[in-house]
Amino acid sequence: MSEKPKKIQPDDRLAPRAVVGRLSLYLRQLEALQAAGLTRVSSTQIANMLHLRDAQVRKDLAFFGQFGHPGIGYQIDELQSSIRKALGTDRLWPLALVGLGNLGRALIRYKEFDKHGFRIAAVFDNDPKKTGTIVQDYPVYSIDQLPEIAKSHGISIAALTVPAEVAQEVVNKLTESGIRGILNFAPVALSVPADVSVVSVDLSVQLEQLVYKVSHAGGGVSYSS
Amino acid sequence: MSEKPKKIQPDDRLAPRAVVGRLSLYLRQLEALQAAGLTRVSSTQIANMLHLRDAQVRKDLAFFGQFGHPGIGYQIDELQSSIRKALGTDRLWPLALVGLGNLGRALIRYKEFDKHGFRIAAVFDNDPKKTGTIVQDYPVYSIDQLPEIAKSHGISIAALTVPAEVAQEVVNKLTESGIRGILNFAPVALSVPADVSVVSVDLSVQLEQLVYKVSHAGGGVSYSS
Repeated sequence: MSEKPKKIQPDDRLAPRAVVGRLSLYLRQLEALQAAGLTRVSSTQIANMLHLRDAQVRKDLAFFGQFGHPGIGYQIDELQSSIRKALGTDRLWPLALVGLGNLGRALIRYKEFDKHGFRIAAVFDNDPKKTGTIVQDYPVYSIDQLPEIAKSHGISIAALTVPAEVAQEVVNKLTESGIRGILNFAPVALSVPADVSVVSVDLSVQLEQLVYKVSHAGGGVSYSS
Repeated sequence: MSEKPKKIQPDDRLAPRAVVGRLSLYLRQLEALQAAGLTRVSSTQIANMLHLRDAQVRKDLAFFGQFGHPGIGYQIDELQSSIRKALGTDRLWPLALVGLGNLGRALIRYKEFDKHGFRIAAVFDNDPKKTGTIVQDYPVYSIDQLPEIAKSHGISIAALTVPAEVAQEVVNKLTESGIRGILNFAPVALSVPADVSVVSVDLSVQLEQLVYKVSHAGGGVSYSS
């Protein structure tokens, strides 16, 4: 594979999905290193931590306009900002949580969202026994109130944790309410307008990856993306 | 990228992680097609459904010894068995669920596991208010009973849904009990012996992927792997 020199600016074009997936992993490692008191890191160190090739890391980061200096490496804080900017998480994203079953309740308590630029701004459910109550400081709204609340809270993304049977119906309401991105936990394929993005979380895919590794006696740690 | 003809047998070597991730996606599409009554599929059809290149699909499947026939394509049932065999999900994997908080309760009800060769065989928690009770037909055991139950139920993989603070301590018990694969939901890096595999699920990574797509006004559907 020859690498032709390309004159691209950061964000000039949509990065391949695999690169974007790795950016999240780089960011996690940088956060850990910074917490440990480091200020600089080399591409080799990042590569070793994630079992990647050195050249791969440099290439991925160069895609977003970040170039390490030989013998110096990357400034951790600068690289973090640059990755967050590339991902779009340099600003806070208010998030609608839609569906207050066990998974919804687990997500409300999921502290990682807060750390990475996401904040649950409102919780929705269709069960009249739940709407109007307060769960972990969140008032629970009816899904019918979504258009109004999404607008007043500036919400454009939602985590969908409703049962599969009602998922499409709820998604239609979400997209009509101006939601442009859906993190889908319902095990069902969703139809959305062309300008709406869906990322589906299928946990059995991740179990399959695990079983593959166990079956092949591989060992080692990997991260989902 | 030139493709040199290689004489490899299925399972001859460990497939790259990205290929294994795609195998799960192929399997999901094949299951959907079979449910719709189809018996054959072409690599082009699979590629179109998943927004991949035709050649990529053929190459991935060839890695596992499956070759489509021009004008005929692949037999869906045959391709499914072959992928399951490659993944190791052609047999049932009893699974320990460790940690009965909200996420644990959500996973107990997660019907997708059953469909894909996984079955929760036993549930563990350290809270004496929970142990000894029955939750969704599962008796809840103390984590101290893990070695014994894992052995009697032939359990070698576990889903870990305990709080981050106690995750490493619980993981030590799991690996001492003969668990060889861990699906980790705790937002913390785990140390495990070299012969134990960990797949960590970090939901904020998936939100970052979503936000990237929304920020770049991409649209479209993708699947986590």
